Formats: sequence, structure tokens, C-alpha cells
Amino acid sequence: MTLKVPEGFRLNGVHCGIKQHSRQEDVTLLVSDTAATAAGVYTQNLIRAAAVELDEQRTPAESIRAIVVNSGNANACTGQRGRSDAARTTQFVADACGLAADQVLVMSTGIIGNYLPMERLSAGIRSAAGSLEADAQHLEAAARGMMTTDTVPKLTGQEISTSHGPVCITGLAKGSGMIAPRMATMLSVILTDAPLKANIAQRMLADVVDHSFNCVTVDGHESTNDTVLLLANGRACSGPLSDADLKLFRRALQDVCVKLARSIASDGEGATHLITIGVRGCTARAAALRIARAVANSPLVKTAVTGGDPNWGRVVSAAGYAGVDFDPSQFDVSINGVTIYGSGAPVPFDAVQLSTSMRNEFETQIVLTFRNGKAAAVYWTCDLTDTYVRINADYHT
Amino acid sequence: MTLKVPEGFRLNGVHCGIKQHSRQEDVTLLVSDTAATAAGVYTQNLIRAAAVELDEQRTPAESIRAIVVNSGNANACTGQRGRSDAARTTQFVADACGLAADQVLVMSTGIIGNYLPMERLSAGIRSAAGSLEADAQHLEAAARGMMTTDTVPKLTGQEISTSHGPVCITGLAKGSGMIAPRMATMLSVILTDAPLKANIAQRMLADVVDHSFNCVTVDGHESTNDTVLLLANGRACSGPLSDADLKLFRRALQDVCVKLARSIASDGEGATHLITIGVRGCTARAAALRIARAVANSPLVKTAVTGGDPNWGRVVSAAGYAGVDFDPSQFDVSINGVTIYGSGAPVPFDAVQLSTSMRNEFETQIVLTFRNGKAAAVYWTCDLTDTYVRINADYHT
Repeated sequence: MTLKVPEGFRLNGVHCGIKQHSRQEDVTLLVSDTAATAAGVYTQNLIRAAAVELDEQRTPAESIRAIVVNSGNANACTGQRGRSDAARTTQFVADACGLAADQVLVMSTGIIGNYLPMERLSAGIRSAAGSLEADAQHLEAAARGMMTTDTVPKLTGQEISTSHGPVCITGLAKGSGMIAPRMATMLSVILTDAPLKANIAQRMLADVVDHSFNCVTVDGHESTNDTVLLLANGRACSGPLSDADLKLFRRALQDVCVKLARSIASDGEGATHLITIGVRGCTARAAALRIARAVANSPLVKTAVTGGDPNWGRVVSAAGYAGVDFDPSQFDVSINGVTIYGSGAPVPFDAVQLSTSMRNEFETQIVLTFRNGKAAAVYWTCDLTDTYVRINADYHT
Repeated sequence: MTLKVPEGFRLNGVHCGIKQHSRQEDVTLLVSDTAATAAGVYTQNLIRAAAVELDEQRTPAESIRAIVVNSGNANACTGQRGRSDAARTTQFVADACGLAADQVLVMSTGIIGNYLPMERLSAGIRSAAGSLEADAQHLEAAARGMMTTDTVPKLTGQEISTSHGPVCITGLAKGSGMIAPRMATMLSVILTDAPLKANIAQRMLADVVDHSFNCVTVDGHESTNDTVLLLANGRACSGPLSDADLKLFRRALQDVCVKLARSIASDGEGATHLITIGVRGCTARAAALRIARAVANSPLVKTAVTGGDPNWGRVVSAAGYAGVDFDPSQFDVSINGVTIYGSGAPVPFDAVQLSTSMRNEFETQIVLTFRNGKAAAVYWTCDLTDTYVRINADYHT
């Protein structure tokens, strides 16, 4: 996969001093040369950061030109001053790039409850605006500018061929702790040079997020700032996408979002394993999701994976408290392809071999198969290690 | 508090080899000299251990004579053979004590998915039956026989004066990991020499459990075996309790259950702090409970307490995803009596002093005050340390 910036976008990430204890990038600016369609999906936490409130008012839209992201400060629980700071931030971008403020969206991530250092942020935005490029190096700097406790920048992309020629989708994301569905302390920006109407973009993004970012949990703690924004500036195509093109595009968009979602779980704080929970054979996707989420959020399942222990008892008992009605004697559990529980009773298996595979593979796959219907769901999480505890016990406000 | 065994009960805990790697007690037998009223409250997990199914059929009742508890093996997910083993266990007790099998209740806790070693269990029951006593030493042995990863036996008691003279309530419990409300990997037996009708005992126990054991979480993982049993043999009184006596008794029973619930949270796997979450000013107790549970189950809140960090952002954002509608600008948060968040905005406080109090006190008290009504709830949990992770990652099936 070669990562590229879609046509008509320029971007960069710079350090301006919001993160006071590192030289890491803390402001990212992404600019479209022409008006772009923007769609957004936001946290469902009742406590919402100022940036979330602002973006929600401005999307969906077909006139967006820029997104500014800061890390190191969430600008959440900051009341009226926080709302005013978010609006001023978009004005800084407008001034630096010659745009109207309402053409700018904003994302923030980091510590809750502190006011943004507006002088530094303003200087950072001017510096980023003066150094925008469209190459892979600046793309990575932009992804780094979104990071908090992430250990790696999260980037992925896809190219598809439409009836109007090739179209590029490039996604950036951050997220490592305080990760739960609906949504996580997670920010993601998806850029594409495909042409999309606002209502189609919004519907497609919401649907795709339900199958990707909303199926990730690290610690079950939903945050105040989570946002996924899609910018589509249409620069790659001369005409509108056909229904077949849109289908293709939707699939590629979901693929990009699933890859980013998996990369967030993989980089969960302290993670040594990615855990994929598959649930199938349910009457409805909602039921499959409930079971998958209960298993994914169980610290006992997570620590079993940490220890390489095929402990089906923890998986089975988590399914039992998911709040979904099923016949306990009519389901099976497999780990890494090995059935270890079937029809309500233990199944003999080679525990040493399975434990070895759990230790050696980065990804542990847990699948629960019911016999009630055809609905399925997939959830991603990571194991729970003492490093998670240390990161979050040592982190100070 | 001097602990005593209520009138007409004898008990003991012995080692019979279900726990193969220690000499710790693993069978407990509690016998009433005369028929006792029995009430039970059980796990709501769909996956239920054989002992839970058996006891649920036999309670409430007014003819129970004995409870047998084994630790080291949960006899859960063991199908028809497990059910038969649970029934045979009650027969062993009946044979050893000269009772009918249906006068015996059974509890199991430990590893899921293994069959009970019936020979050892039978020998253990005979040994315990031959050494029953009514003193404090045997009471503690009985509490030890219920322990799994518990570091201390959990015992408490109360004496109250009724119109028919003094009545004694003594409670035993176990629980340390896989602890979540409705219920936990938690067993508790409450013995009393008060006289109670079965329907009154059942209603009272269910109500008291809702205000005690159902408000405890260690890791949010509901287990397959959780059971609270109340045995009341009436031996202390010559006549029935008056309404005023019953009121007094209910209060004392709740006090006993709250103390045991707090001792379970205090002994949560790896815990270095007991965390009490108080929520008040809600429209309904159910709403207050949802918020308290969301805060109590957040690994980020737990690790903040581990680190002695008054991180109100984690508390506030957990309340925000509890699924309860409230005005984010109309509530306050205090830790250890210090208000740190008020009316939707940070409140200045002495962070060093508060952090010191969090580190020095074993109990951290977090209180959320809303302005929507008069309903309140209290929840107990513990902090999350790397020891929890090590215990559960190193534990092998």
C-alpha cells in the first residue's frame, strides 16, 4: 500500500507547544483547495467537547475547506470559554488560509478540563498553513499531530476505479485509551477526491462507522471528543459517481475505516495482542453486537489473552450476561480456529498447542457461533496488561 | 464486634483436596439443628452453575437444614453430569447428617468447566460433618472454606433486641474477582436465629441484596455461580417477630450485607483502595445506579485512584455515557469531600492536598450531585492495579 494524499488536498502537522513535555507535533491542518462535502459522526457521550458541538452544527455541508486538529488538550468541560475558543480556532485557520470561518471544522484531543493555549495554537496554525504539502511525509506529520498516547501514527488508504477514473481515499486516525464504541477518544479524518453529495456522504459515513469505529473498545470508557470527519472534494472526477461507483466507494471506505479501527485496537494502551471477537448465528445484528461487546469489554477475557490462556469459561460467562436471550446448550466457542466449547459443554482440545498459538500470534480470534439466525458482528479490542494500568495510574491531571 | 454463631447452628470448613495446590479449606458445611427458613438470590447470568439451578428450585422454603459450599471448582458449564453431581453433593450431606437431600442447599465457586471430584468431596463432607462446632474458630474456618482468590475471610455480624429477646445475624461471604452486580463470583451465607416466614425472608433478602451485593463491582464480569442464601431457624425467639422487630431486623440485615459487600470490594483482586461512588439528586434510584455503575466500572476512574489522581474528567465523562439524561451544566463532583467540578466547569482546589488524601486513605469517596430529584445510590468498587492483571493473566485453566 502506497499512501498518497487525494487530489486537491494539502496538509501538515507541526509542534506549537500545546504538548509542553515533548516536541511532538500537536497541531494538524488539512486544507482542500476547493469546497468539499463534509460529513461527521460524533461521540454520543452527554458530555461533549466544544469542537464536537461546533462540527455538529456545521455538518453535513458542501462548502468545507479545512479541518484543524489539536492534540494535548481536549477543550472539553470548558464551558462557554471553551466554545468561544473552538470558534476562534476556526477563525485563526480562516485568517491564515483566506477562508470564511464557517468553512473550517475543528477537532481536539487530550486532557479534559484545561483551556486551550490560544496564543500557541494561533502561532501553530499560521506555521502549519505556511507549510502545507501533498506528499507522504507531510501526510505522516499530519497523522502524528493527532496523537496522544498513541505509539504509532495511524494511516491507511485505498484507490478504486470509478466510471470517471481513479479515486483515492486516505484515512488518518488517533486513539489508544478511553476507547469505547459510540465513540472512542478517537479522532479520524477521511479525505477523498471523489465527488459526493452531502446527504449521501453523511448516510454512508454513519453506516460505515457502525461497522468499523463503533466496533472498537479498549477500555469501555466513552470519551467526550470522538469525531470522524469525511471530506470529499470531487477533484478526481469530472462527473457524479454512478450507483455502481458508489457501491464500490462504500466498500473501499468501509475497508479504510476497518483498517483504522483495527489499528486503534492494536495500539490500545499497553496492548500486546489485537483481539477480534466474531459473533454469528444471531437473530439480529444488535444481539450479535451486544454479545461481542460484552466479551470484548471483559477484563477477564482480556487478561486471559494476555496470559495466552484459552479460558473459554470467561468467554461463555461474558456472553451469558450480555442481556441477549439464547439457549446456553446451543452455541460453540472457538479460539484461533480451534473449537473449545460446543453445545453447552467443554470440547477436548490441545491446550498447549492453542496456548502457543495465542502467545505467538499478535491477533487472537474468538468466535461465538449461535444457532438462532443469520446475523453477525465483529468487534475489535486488545488485551489488558500491567502497562495499561501504569499508563493510566501514572498519568496526572 | 464479637462474632458469634447464631443459636442452633454448627459449622466447619475443612480441606479435602478440591484445591490441589494448597492446603486451604475447600469444603464448608453449615447445619441448623432444626428446620430453618431459607431464602436465596442468584446470579442473573444466562449461564448458570448446577448449584444455582438446584438452590433456586429449593428456595424459598421453611424446611432447610444445611448448606454445603465447595471452593476450587465452580461446577459450571458441566451439563447434565454437573447437575447430577450437585444433587449427589446434597445427598452426601443428607447421609452424613441424617437429613433428607432436599433439606440441603449447595454452593460452588472456582474454576469453570471442570467436573467435581466427587470422591474427595464426599470424604470432605463426612469430615466436616464429624467436626461441626458453634464457636468463632469454626466460623472462621467455614468462611475460609469459601475463599478462592480472596486474601482474607469475610465475616461480619450484628445483634439486635427484639420484643422476644436478642437475635443474632452472622454473615459469611467470598468474592474477589469476576465481580459485577446481578451478581458477582460471590457467595454469601447469612445465618440468623430469628424466626422468619419464607415469603417475608425472600422479599427482605432480595430487597437488601439490591442495596448491598448488587452494588459491588470489581471488574464488571458477572459470574455463573453467585448466590446469597439466608437461613433463619427461629431458635432465639419463642414467638413471631412484630412489625417493629422486622423493621429492626431488616436494617441489621442490610447492615450485615453492606459490610460484606464492602469487604468484597476492598479485597478485589489486586486492590489497594476501596472506592465508594455516591450519586444523589436523581429522579429515580435506577438512574442513580446507572451513573454509579458507569463510574465504578471505568478502568480509567479506577486507575486514577490507583495513582492518587483527582481526575474529575474521567468521572464526568463516565457519567456522560451512563445512558441517563441530565443537564451537563447542572451537577457537581467531589472526591473525599472536596468539590472539584461544579455546574459544568472545573472548580479550583488544592490538587496536592487532595492527591495526598487519596494516597493515604484506603477508601476514596467520589460523590456526584445532580439537581433533578431526591433519589440516590451507593456503589462500591476497588482500584485497578497491575496485580489484578498479573493474577488474571497468570491464572491458567
